[in-house]
Amino acid sequence: MTDALSIARDLIRCPSVTPVDAGALGVLEKALAAAGFTCHRVTFSEEGTADVDNLYARIGTDGPHITFAGHTDVVPPGDESAWSVGAFSGEVKDGFLHGRGAVDMKGGIACSVAAVLEHLAANDGKPRADGKGSISFLITGDEEDVSINGTIKLLKWAAERGEKFDHCVLGEPSNVETLGDTIKVGRRGSQSGTLYVDGVQGHVAYPHRAANPVPDISRLIVAISDEPLDHGSAQFQASNLEFTSVDVGNKANNVIPGEARAKFNIRYNDNHTQASLRELVETRLTKACGNRIKARIVWEPSNSNVFVTKPGPFTDLAVSAIEEVTGRKPELSTSGGTSDARFISSYCPVIEFGLVGQTMHQVNERVPVGDLEKLTQVYRGILARYFG
Amino acid sequence: MTDALSIARDLIRCPSVTPVDAGALGVLEKALAAAGFTCHRVTFSEEGTADVDNLYARIGTDGPHITFAGHTDVVPPGDESAWSVGAFSGEVKDGFLHGRGAVDMKGGIACSVAAVLEHLAANDGKPRADGKGSISFLITGDEEDVSINGTIKLLKWAAERGEKFDHCVLGEPSNVETLGDTIKVGRRGSQSGTLYVDGVQGHVAYPHRAANPVPDISRLIVAISDEPLDHGSAQFQASNLEFTSVDVGNKANNVIPGEARAKFNIRYNDNHTQASLRELVETRLTKACGNRIKARIVWEPSNSNVFVTKPGPFTDLAVSAIEEVTGRKPELSTSGGTSDARFISSYCPVIEFGLVGQTMHQVNERVPVGDLEKLTQVYRGILARYFG
Repeated sequence: MTDALSIARDLIRCPSVTPVDAGALGVLEKALAAAGFTCHRVTFSEEGTADVDNLYARIGTDGPHITFAGHTDVVPPGDESAWSVGAFSGEVKDGFLHGRGAVDMKGGIACSVAAVLEHLAANDGKPRADGKGSISFLITGDEEDVSINGTIKLLKWAAERGEKFDHCVLGEPSNVETLGDTIKVGRRGSQSGTLYVDGVQGHVAYPHRAANPVPDISRLIVAISDEPLDHGSAQFQASNLEFTSVDVGNKANNVIPGEARAKFNIRYNDNHTQASLRELVETRLTKACGNRIKARIVWEPSNSNVFVTKPGPFTDLAVSAIEEVTGRKPELSTSGGTSDARFISSYCPVIEFGLVGQTMHQVNERVPVGDLEKLTQVYRGILARYFG
Repeated sequence: MTDALSIARDLIRCPSVTPVDAGALGVLEKALAAAGFTCHRVTFSEEGTADVDNLYARIGTDGPHITFAGHTDVVPPGDESAWSVGAFSGEVKDGFLHGRGAVDMKGGIACSVAAVLEHLAANDGKPRADGKGSISFLITGDEEDVSINGTIKLLKWAAERGEKFDHCVLGEPSNVETLGDTIKVGRRGSQSGTLYVDGVQGHVAYPHRAANPVPDISRLIVAISDEPLDHGSAQFQASNLEFTSVDVGNKANNVIPGEARAKFNIRYNDNHTQASLRELVETRLTKACGNRIKARIVWEPSNSNVFVTKPGPFTDLAVSAIEEVTGRKPELSTSGGTSDARFISSYCPVIEFGLVGQTMHQVNERVPVGDLEKLTQVYRGILARYFG
């Protein structure tokens, strides 16, 4: 059975809670190999993390090359007794397919595989009528947890083999309330750091012999966070810096402490690169410190750069396919949390379009069977336009 | 032997580390009873603390009534092997009397007892030639540690017996470098509190759904501590407020915290009472909060009120006695740490004059034998002028 509901049900029945595969990738590999895909199972390792299986499957040898990305791992079901059906039963009840991963994102993967198989069957087993073009699947088992042995390494592995991607559709549950309401075309970057202020410890009765870092770090927090980082861009809301903690840990109320520190996180848009953003904050800090305050920022490593796939032919064909099937004109959104799209964006333009996210990560995660059918048709519409 | 050196040596040989008496009060009681003092040993108790012995001794029944206050307990000797002579040996070497308590303040008590005994011997055993006047000793064994079962309770006990004090000399080591350089005539008050700011917890990616207390508490810290509380007074340096800690304790850098808190301590002068000080800070807080920031201060209980014995006949006669013996005109100081004078000041004017504090609480605490003789003469000079 190669319809979306069957594939999704088979996937849900594999309890593939990260980092366990539980047969999920095999379900896809079997269906794709039968349709002529060349399949690679690649296992990645890193000290301190579990080994994780990944799947790369491609049909065709030249461009244009569209890849469907996704993950077969899921978050734990939580209290299974709270589910109305088994979390890994894949049961269909009242028009809904139930189970962990139904929308995030085994359902989305199933729709993409079903759409591709239908597309190939309608084109003599080829991506494009003239025999050109390639379709591939980049499927990982390491997205929901640390994301170390997953997409980031699979992309590097593929690049080293000479694989080149022209466009990517990531089937994460992008829609907020109804299928067709939202395509995610980018995400803000995320950058954390810690601000340290050095003072001179002393007794509160002799403040002239001490230098209190508490009012100084307070001044710096206000100076750094009060002024907006920007006023938004065409695709993004304004960047934002939040101090998430300020700490001294001094229990002695007769002692002026010697150091204070404050943690902050920035969500930033395409007005900035990681480097220009750090420079902007450091410049504000230097100005606020003047010649008196001794402060420094320690930046945390970040692999969450800002990215955006700007409106153009690729987003247009996705919008058109979605409108045709759902009757809705989707918003091109850049809001929300992080996904593997942040890694893919370094290799090719990427959009995220999948199911409706409302029940993701919750008890009784489920998807209307009708949505699986519609999403499959949307993906078929994208393929038809892409290779048309 | 009732000279100061002998009494000091006998006291040092009692290892009276708080709350242990080890016979120290008995040394004084014996000498005072022999000179006609009525002696009371009073033991105070409180749950969670050790019982502590105290001594009240008085000669005379009417005014004027001068009382010499002090404590026979000492801080621990620390590493006794680091001492050049035994910490409780009371050995005289190279012109110094050595031992824990030599300056803080067994030496000072010994001088006051010796001076009083000499004064009485020269006046037919009476405080004043006309038979009027009273001299007393308020000696506690609970000053160096929690100060719960000591002077504060002894004063209350005495008041309940109808004891009225006109003036007090507390023999703490008031001098900074040389005998005669400093009389302590007051101390700043101390008041601690904690500032709490309530925000609304949320995700850093959705700051409009949260209210971050970190920049708000930073603003309040600056607003409360930037402006001076006053510019000093005749006897005091300026009051001072120090924020000693600011804490959130949020480890998640994607979470805006729900609360922040900051601890502060105020050292305040006689421009304020505890009540007016709290009102001043609360007023600043209210103004800085405006209608937006939700904040509150929790004040800690404090028994360290500001007090001062203003220049007048009592300080004049002490200065005159000190000048006559040492050739120095002492500074009337209100600086430094806390002492039992803060309790005594509620009952009568109090000044602190004793030995030189340099070696107090240190290994090899010691006092020049010459200083014991001179301090005894200063106290005699004070008594002669007081009853003259």
